[in-house]
Amino acid sequence: MARYSPSIQNLIAQLSNLPGIGGKSAQRIAFHILAMDDQTAGDLTDSIATARRNTKRCSCCQNFTDSDPCPVCSDPMRDRTTVLVVETPRDVSTFERMHEYSGLYHVLHGVFDPMKSKSIQDTTISQLLRRLSEHSEITEVIIATNQNAEGNATALYLARILAPSGINVTRLASGLPMGSDIEFADDLTLASALKGRVQL
Amino acid sequence: MARYSPSIQNLIAQLSNLPGIGGKSAQRIAFHILAMDDQTAGDLTDSIATARRNTKRCSCCQNFTDSDPCPVCSDPMRDRTTVLVVETPRDVSTFERMHEYSGLYHVLHGVFDPMKSKSIQDTTISQLLRRLSEHSEITEVIIATNQNAEGNATALYLARILAPSGINVTRLASGLPMGSDIEFADDLTLASALKGRVQL
Repeated sequence: MARYSPSIQNLIAQLSNLPGIGGKSAQRIAFHILAMDDQTAGDLTDSIATARRNTKRCSCCQNFTDSDPCPVCSDPMRDRTTVLVVETPRDVSTFERMHEYSGLYHVLHGVFDPMKSKSIQDTTISQLLRRLSEHSEITEVIIATNQNAEGNATALYLARILAPSGINVTRLASGLPMGSDIEFADDLTLASALKGRVQL
Repeated sequence: MARYSPSIQNLIAQLSNLPGIGGKSAQRIAFHILAMDDQTAGDLTDSIATARRNTKRCSCCQNFTDSDPCPVCSDPMRDRTTVLVVETPRDVSTFERMHEYSGLYHVLHGVFDPMKSKSIQDTTISQLLRRLSEHSEITEVIIATNQNAEGNATALYLARILAPSGINVTRLASGLPMGSDIEFADDLTLASALKGRVQL
């Protein structure tokens, strides 16, 4: 990359480390930041510092929150018998956007990945187990990890260690997306849809 | 968008204001920032502050630089008779990457855009005119504004006001990109390539 001054190069490098930001985007954002007025730039850096300072993990569901317990865990209208287990805080917002789920959540903050030597300790599975033992009203754990090797490994691990507890452990259905054409489905999805076929 | 705490919502909003960052990317980056260790997050905010503090405009070419004059303007090996006029600092790096141009630059930091009421005063055209009057060794101004309405308007304006000075004003050729198929060329590009056809 051509002659940028050291501090601009450093800014571009820092921005390139963010997820989904490639070299070209990082350059574009860097020059946008340099051209900002002081107020706007201050708001940006303050928002980072403030969010990091104010945000903690909910002691119950481990989601990021300003207040502990988080708004979902402290909402008396939620169904406290069901816990939906997701990988990331963003997954919680995806389910909340759907307005079809009224139970509680548990955020793993990671998945079990033997290939990347990510172990159970890198997730909040131990907090989930403690939570389940302390809250006997929980009767179902819905596992909503992603449909890939790590998500599957984590789901199977959870199902196995929760089996003795008698809690009903379920997983999101996998199959053809709504509105999709069979012609364009990949083999794995099609095989999974066939295997999981349901009675009409 | 679903239940995020106020400081996370603010961080997402700030990130969404950056160019090329949509709502989903902003969420992804925000949670990445929240999950960073303190050192990494500090490096990110420091790089923004440092780049903004250290970076000024080169008094000669108006490009962003840590040192004034910038490395290009102070390089004794550059051809000082030619000035290539670009819209943004990123365009300078694009030309430098090519290693085919050894003259100097002038960064407009904008274009003349009557539709958005962006006037000549929003660019560094006045600095360019002063520079040309002070440096009589400059014999050619190559205009490399983008090939769109604003870029064209700015190029024509510059050509008109520089005409009395006797400086040779040129513009980058427009036409078919190298390696492109005529079949897939858009009408404007094809018309421009036809109009600008060259003798073989």
